[in-house]
Amino acid sequence: MATDPAELGRRLRDGDRSAAAAALNVIENRGERDATRALLSEVSPAALEREPPAHVIGITGPPGAGKSSLLSVLVSEWRNRQRTVAVLAVDPSSKRSGGSLLGDRARIDHDPRDDGVLIRSTAAGGRLGGLAAATREAAEALAPAFDVVVVETVGVGQSDTDVEDVCDTVAVVVQPASGDVLQFLKAGIMEVPDLLVVTKADLGDAAKRSRRDLTHALAAVGSPEVPVLAVSSVPSPSGIGELVDALDAHRDGTDLAERRVRARRGAALREFTAEHGERALRDLGGRREAERLLERQDPAAGVTALVSALEAAR
Amino acid sequence: MATDPAELGRRLRDGDRSAAAAALNVIENRGERDATRALLSEVSPAALEREPPAHVIGITGPPGAGKSSLLSVLVSEWRNRQRTVAVLAVDPSSKRSGGSLLGDRARIDHDPRDDGVLIRSTAAGGRLGGLAAATREAAEALAPAFDVVVVETVGVGQSDTDVEDVCDTVAVVVQPASGDVLQFLKAGIMEVPDLLVVTKADLGDAAKRSRRDLTHALAAVGSPEVPVLAVSSVPSPSGIGELVDALDAHRDGTDLAERRVRARRGAALREFTAEHGERALRDLGGRREAERLLERQDPAAGVTALVSALEAAR
Repeated sequence: MATDPAELGRRLRDGDRSAAAAALNVIENRGERDATRALLSEVSPAALEREPPAHVIGITGPPGAGKSSLLSVLVSEWRNRQRTVAVLAVDPSSKRSGGSLLGDRARIDHDPRDDGVLIRSTAAGGRLGGLAAATREAAEALAPAFDVVVVETVGVGQSDTDVEDVCDTVAVVVQPASGDVLQFLKAGIMEVPDLLVVTKADLGDAAKRSRRDLTHALAAVGSPEVPVLAVSSVPSPSGIGELVDALDAHRDGTDLAERRVRARRGAALREFTAEHGERALRDLGGRREAERLLERQDPAAGVTALVSALEAAR
Repeated sequence: MATDPAELGRRLRDGDRSAAAAALNVIENRGERDATRALLSEVSPAALEREPPAHVIGITGPPGAGKSSLLSVLVSEWRNRQRTVAVLAVDPSSKRSGGSLLGDRARIDHDPRDDGVLIRSTAAGGRLGGLAAATREAAEALAPAFDVVVVETVGVGQSDTDVEDVCDTVAVVVQPASGDVLQFLKAGIMEVPDLLVVTKADLGDAAKRSRRDLTHALAAVGSPEVPVLAVSSVPSPSGIGELVDALDAHRDGTDLAERRVRARRGAALREFTAEHGERALRDLGGRREAERLLERQDPAAGVTALVSALEAAR
């Protein structure tokens, strides 16, 4: 039975979470842009006539920082507070290695019979913003049907994911004594997040020192107001209730409508330019065909000459 | 007196290093693409009728890893070996913060009267590959006139710089106990470099442990052949001669002609798509005009509708 994308969109708009998995399949199938458009037009902010109700939260940080363990306990805290949660776990490494990391890495624990929770892993897409667009669209589609939508990504603020474009609140998760994150923050290479979370608080002094160092680094980059929290997921969770409260406080203290409008405008500009770049490649018969065309050129040709050859072939 | 770009290109091709600074001015002025093209056509591989003679080396790593101190001693080691050196220090942070980091960070020491050395700092360019293109062009222009061209960048293999596209040999520099770099490498997010350099070898055990951990991480990602070196720049240099030997060994063991042809083809594809994206923006009257156009749309409009509005305005 074929599923009508617009129908899926309407069901999500009306809060029917059982439409979520099928909707994500439509969105992830990047070949069927019309189906995605039909689906999203039903759940878009205009159709809802209000901002989407979910709080969209980005959880990002280097691999090994403990994001999956943290999300396992965060999801149960939200469920204890009677909130429904969707987690979109994005894996940027698959772009480079060809395979996905997600098989190897820690899973997010949850009760599979609980229909108030959806966990979805997404391999990264193409180079030109495909990932960012699919993630944004997935979050947009799920927003009317869940109380919280989490976008989990790996990175230190340089990722192609542009998690800032998608999320109302961005939390960067680091483990104690992760010096690079501190350096990236101080050097202005890493975007200042809305919230910093130091994991493995059970390590005691190391977590305390990291928390202090990060607080100083944030003051040094002119953002002393960013909260730095210390949490522990295993063996026994601590600081999780405080983290949920801090996420809520950021949401309540932010003009979300304005932030979302700005984010959508930025995303539209980026999608427009990426799309035109891809269109130029399609005019050549696709990326593979363009590569073949380049291989037929003089091996000594410089980049400028190769670009001219591509232009001539359009 | 206006400087003829083609003349500058011819002087560089003939090994005249005194043309280097003026040539870099032409290349960095991204508005004058024709002048850059005229300059590069004189030094391009086709015009040289052989591969450029310089060994183009990428030195990359997180801020604070000691890249500048290392380059100071590396430059003197190369000069002791009678090699001329150009260093292009790229600063990606200026893209985000608006200002450049270079004022704050450690300088590369060199004798300003020695015309065998050129040190040039470059602020990052626009979002769509401007930096990568300018850096590649600068390295290409300087290659006939110097024995070694170094491209120094900040990052852990995720940078927009695409240093792999530009360099014959890429060395990643890390300080001891930088866990994130290890994690990024294991997770496949960081490109495997040609060489790993652990700085601050004078710290003893910490450097030894990092060297061992990185060697294991490289074996785990299927690249046990990548050398891991420990060096010290201050207070007294050690391991620098070995590093220069290892860089030379990589150059001698690599089919540079093939690597350069492949890199130029990759760069051409990326420049072609980025250029078409920018062209679509120019058709709208430029980025600022496109932003104004988006501000005139319904604030509740979704990204899809905003992209359609941009298309309609073309």
